[in-house]
Amino acid sequence: MASEWILTLTAQTPTNIAVIKYWGKRDESLILPVNDSISVTLDPGHLCTTTTVAVSPAFEQDRMWLNGKEISLSGDRFQSCLREIRARATDVENKEKGIKISKKDWEKLHLHISSFNNFPTAAGLASSAAGLACLVFSLGKLMNVQEDHSQLSAIARQGSGSACRSLYGGFVKWIMGKEENGSDSLAVQLADEKHWDELVIIIAVVSSRQKETSSTSGMRESVETSLLLQHRAKEVVPKRILKMEEAIQNRDFASFAALACADSNQFHAVCLDTSPPIFYMNDTSHSGNAFNR
Amino acid sequence: MASEWILTLTAQTPTNIAVIKYWGKRDESLILPVNDSISVTLDPGHLCTTTTVAVSPAFEQDRMWLNGKEISLSGDRFQSCLREIRARATDVENKEKGIKISKKDWEKLHLHISSFNNFPTAAGLASSAAGLACLVFSLGKLMNVQEDHSQLSAIARQGSGSACRSLYGGFVKWIMGKEENGSDSLAVQLADEKHWDELVIIIAVVSSRQKETSSTSGMRESVETSLLLQHRAKEVVPKRILKMEEAIQNRDFASFAALACADSNQFHAVCLDTSPPIFYMNDTSHSGNAFNR
Repeated sequence: MASEWILTLTAQTPTNIAVIKYWGKRDESLILPVNDSISVTLDPGHLCTTTTVAVSPAFEQDRMWLNGKEISLSGDRFQSCLREIRARATDVENKEKGIKISKKDWEKLHLHISSFNNFPTAAGLASSAAGLACLVFSLGKLMNVQEDHSQLSAIARQGSGSACRSLYGGFVKWIMGKEENGSDSLAVQLADEKHWDELVIIIAVVSSRQKETSSTSGMRESVETSLLLQHRAKEVVPKRILKMEEAIQNRDFASFAALACADSNQFHAVCLDTSPPIFYMNDTSHSGNAFNR
Repeated sequence: MASEWILTLTAQTPTNIAVIKYWGKRDESLILPVNDSISVTLDPGHLCTTTTVAVSPAFEQDRMWLNGKEISLSGDRFQSCLREIRARATDVENKEKGIKISKKDWEKLHLHISSFNNFPTAAGLASSAAGLACLVFSLGKLMNVQEDHSQLSAIARQGSGSACRSLYGGFVKWIMGKEENGSDSLAVQLADEKHWDELVIIIAVVSSRQKETSSTSGMRESVETSLLLQHRAKEVVPKRILKMEEAIQNRDFASFAALACADSNQFHAVCLDTSPPIFYMNDTSHSGNAFNR
């Protein structure tokens, strides 16, 4: 096997917008949530991440660039995804280029990953969801991983919780699961993108500045300090999940919108009940909301 | 008794700021709350209502002016206060003016009431608390009512819930009570104004515009639609009340401030969890809050 070769693969993954929100982990390192959540995956032609993954024996280490700037891959979350995907790599053969990579070669080969978001990063538009889903998906393709989307979703989840929901189009449920090892905490498709194609999601960007509090630290602080979060997770969300599934199945827009608004506001309420409080809305968001009154 | 006489009395009552919040009624007409609350009464030299009450046989009906503009007294709340105070009127004699009013005369005599706030009205500074407390207190004095402050507080409560807390200085607790007729839902003084005189309250007016949602309708909507309010009232507030009483007794500023901030934020969280959501904070309030991070 010559050392000059390079094998690349490019994939696009859309972002997803939760209509029943994920806010709070019961396990920080495995990224296991305190409640189920439901999202709508956007059209990949609109908000999406485009990721190119490359492998070559010339690469000396794993490296990644986000929006053209190199970022560290040393964090636990990237390492979890890379480890889990590599463990599932199989033989790859590219006859055209004369490349053969065997299952065990993947352990020694390094990757270069380049990812671009066509929308503001870390501004509440689920850039990490699209990004980590695309990373796992593109690496899975490159390495000829045989796992299905649901199994890949459990890997993407370890990169960024909501990423698991971006592996499917349409309407997606992230089942919180019960197992301590997280094996049953994965995404399932409730309905595909054709099921309700009259539904149009309009994204109004009220600020493209990076959030002052990351989702990761915000959630951790909410779990530790909000006295409303566990009540929401245990008493409120389970009933809403059932109602939202029904609204989606019946294409019942009135119920869908009422549930999505109520749940979004409750998520922001829990943020406000966190100490110190977290604000992800500003006066512009409020004036949009006031429109609903 | 000549018909030209007029007897007047002027009183001042300060506003009060809740540090454990009242938000939600279990009885709308008697104004019975879903939880206890605790407030600090401000210095009457600062934010206060000044009310002059006058009685004269020349007056043909009860009338009231607020900040110089006549307002209707026909609402249930004003009527409750007037009825309850009149029922407790006793004989009044003013030898200087040669006026004698007997207990039963009060039923036929009409009142003129003029009230001024030296701070923005209906802008979140408890103007109705100061106003109704001052109304009940001044009428009580004019009519020689013998009831003590706690009993007067139960009357003021029927005018505006938080008004019951403005009848005392210092630190005041509104006990929610258990009786259906509201007889045990009244204010008690936890500590007087001298107990902790190093404590300074700074009122930063971030907007003097009238609130878009009145407390009355906001609370009603929260009770009807928020899925977090009952949990707050039953599980969160009772423990906080005990901690706040302890912080006040011990003049423990760190605990006092942490509890007051957390409870204020939770009240705003319940407002946000209301459908449609209620916003009593704006970006300016948030930037002040961010200072605490």
